[in-house]
Amino acid sequence: MLPIAVDAMGGDKAPDDIVAGAELATKEGLPVVLVGDESRLSSLTDLPIVASSEVIEMGDEPASAVRAKKDSSVVVANKLVSDGQASAVISAGNTGAALASSLLKLGRIKGVSRPTIAVPFPTVADTPTTLVDTGANADCKAPWLIQFGKLGTIYQRRRFGIEKPRLGVLTIGEEAGKGNALIKETCQLAEETDWSTVGADFIGNIEGHDFLDGSVDVVIADGFTGNVVLKSLEGMFELFKQETNAYLQDIGGAREAVVPMFKKYDPVTVGTGVLLGLKHISMIAHGSSSPQAIANTIRTANELLSLDMVDVQRTELA
Amino acid sequence: MLPIAVDAMGGDKAPDDIVAGAELATKEGLPVVLVGDESRLSSLTDLPIVASSEVIEMGDEPASAVRAKKDSSVVVANKLVSDGQASAVISAGNTGAALASSLLKLGRIKGVSRPTIAVPFPTVADTPTTLVDTGANADCKAPWLIQFGKLGTIYQRRRFGIEKPRLGVLTIGEEAGKGNALIKETCQLAEETDWSTVGADFIGNIEGHDFLDGSVDVVIADGFTGNVVLKSLEGMFELFKQETNAYLQDIGGAREAVVPMFKKYDPVTVGTGVLLGLKHISMIAHGSSSPQAIANTIRTANELLSLDMVDVQRTELA
Repeated sequence: MLPIAVDAMGGDKAPDDIVAGAELATKEGLPVVLVGDESRLSSLTDLPIVASSEVIEMGDEPASAVRAKKDSSVVVANKLVSDGQASAVISAGNTGAALASSLLKLGRIKGVSRPTIAVPFPTVADTPTTLVDTGANADCKAPWLIQFGKLGTIYQRRRFGIEKPRLGVLTIGEEAGKGNALIKETCQLAEETDWSTVGADFIGNIEGHDFLDGSVDVVIADGFTGNVVLKSLEGMFELFKQETNAYLQDIGGAREAVVPMFKKYDPVTVGTGVLLGLKHISMIAHGSSSPQAIANTIRTANELLSLDMVDVQRTELA
Repeated sequence: MLPIAVDAMGGDKAPDDIVAGAELATKEGLPVVLVGDESRLSSLTDLPIVASSEVIEMGDEPASAVRAKKDSSVVVANKLVSDGQASAVISAGNTGAALASSLLKLGRIKGVSRPTIAVPFPTVADTPTTLVDTGANADCKAPWLIQFGKLGTIYQRRRFGIEKPRLGVLTIGEEAGKGNALIKETCQLAEETDWSTVGADFIGNIEGHDFLDGSVDVVIADGFTGNVVLKSLEGMFELFKQETNAYLQDIGGAREAVVPMFKKYDPVTVGTGVLLGLKHISMIAHGSSSPQAIANTIRTANELLSLDMVDVQRTELA
C-alpha cells in the first residue's frame, strides 16, 4: 500500500500540527510520508520523510512560486504521486500553490477544463451538501460551472451513496433569471444540459439559506463566491460555538448537551476539500487545520482512494 | 410630520403581516400610510390607505414591471415620497422592483453612480458591521464598489457613531492580490483612494470569517456576493436557533439562557437594508419579514430621517 504524501510545511501551524495529525492517522494504520525540512521534521517524528528544501508561503503568488520553487514541499509532495511513490497528496498550505502543483504534476482527467475544489458541508439532513467550487477558480466561465456540477454530482453519489443528487446553482433569488451575468448564463446552460449522464436531479436556483436545510445535495458556485460563503459560514459556526458556551456557562448539563450539535455541524467533521477533475487525489486542507483535521483529511483521502474516485470521474465524464 | 409610505402588497405574507407591522409602528407614534388594494387593506385596518390597483410579483422582471405597472403599490409608494406626501418608503416585495422604483421616482444624489443596499450585521462587538452592497447591483464595476464603501462609511459613522470606521473589501485571502478580477481591481483602486474625505480607516482585505468577530466596521462586496453571504448567514442563524433549542429541550433553564444570544445575533435586531445614494430614504425589507421586522424597518426609516441621512450623504460626497 503506497503512502499518502503530506506537505508538512504548509499550514498556519506547520510543521508541528501537520506532523501531529500525520501521527494520528498512522496509528490507525494509514501509511504516510512527510515532505519538508528534513532536520526539522526528524526532530519531531519518526515517520518517513522525503526532504525538500523550499517552502511556498501563504503570500507567494501561486503560479510563479510553483515554477520558481521546484524543491518546495508542496511541489515535491505532488511529484511523489506522479512518480508512483505515493497514492494521494495533502496540503494545508497556500491553496493556489497546492492547486497549481497538482495541476502541473498530477494532470487533468481528459475533457476536464478546470479542476474544482469540492467541500461537503454538514446540514440538518443525514448527508452533507457539497459546494463546488470553493476556491480553485476565482474567475469562471459558465461551461466550467456546468462541469463543476457534474464532478460534484459524481462525488456526491459515490462518496455519500446518494442515488440521484439534487443539484442547484447558488444565486440571489428563487426565480429564473436572478443572478449576475455569469450565473444567468450558467442557469441557462444548465437548463440545456443532459444531467442524466451523471445522475443529477437539476433543481435550478438555490439561495444561501437553502443549502443548510437539506433541500439540495450539490451546489454550484464560482470559486470566489463559494470560498466567501464557506469562510463566512465557518466564521459563524465558530462564533456560535463560542457564544453558546458562554451563554450556557452557568446552566448545569447545558454545555454537554450541545457538544453533539457542534460536532454534527463542525465543518471538520465531514472532511476537507478535494480537488476534483485530476488524475490523482489531491486534498486541500484548511490553513488553520488542527492535528485532528489533518488526520481526518488523510482518512478522507484514503476513503476516496478506496472508492476509486478518480476512475469513477473518468468513466462518468467520458 | 409626513407619514412613511409602506408598500402593503410586497412580501411573502403581504398584505397581512405588512399591515400588522405598520400597526405596531403606529402604536409607537410613527405615522404610516399604506399603499395597495384599497378594499383588501380597509378590511384589515383603519390606517390611512392610498389605493393602487397593481402588484409587482416576486417573479416579475423588475425594470420592465416598474415601467409597465405604473399603478403598482411599490411605484405608487415611491411616488408619494417624490410628490412630498410621504417622508420615506418601505417595501418587502421584489427587491429589484423596489430598487428600480426608487431609482426612478426618488433619483440619485449628485455624483452617485449606483445606489447600494447597506445591511448592518450583528457581531461580537457592540456595534454591527455594515455590508454594502447586499443585492442592488449583481454586476458591478470597481469604481462603484469604491463608492459603496464611501456610502457605507458615511452611514456607519452617522448611524452607529463610529468615529473612524474600519473599512475592508470582502475577498478570498488576507494577502494583497487575492480575489477575482473585479475585486483585485477594486483593491488596487481602494489603495489609491483618499478615504479621509469620508473618515474611513481602510484596512484592506477581509475574509468571510472576519466580519462577525468585530474586526471591521464596513465591508465592501459586489451585490451578488453580498446577497449570497447575507442569506447564507441568515440561514445558518435560523438553523442554529432551531437546533440549539432542540438540543437544549430537556435542560432546565437552558433555552431561556440562550434567548438573549439569539436576540443579539438576530439579523432583524439591527434592522433591514437601506438604499444609500438616493435623494430620499428607501428601505428594502426582507421578503419573509414578520410584523416585528416590518415595524423595525419603519422605526429604522424614522431614525435615518431624524439623522438627516440623505443630507449627510450629499454633503460628504460633495
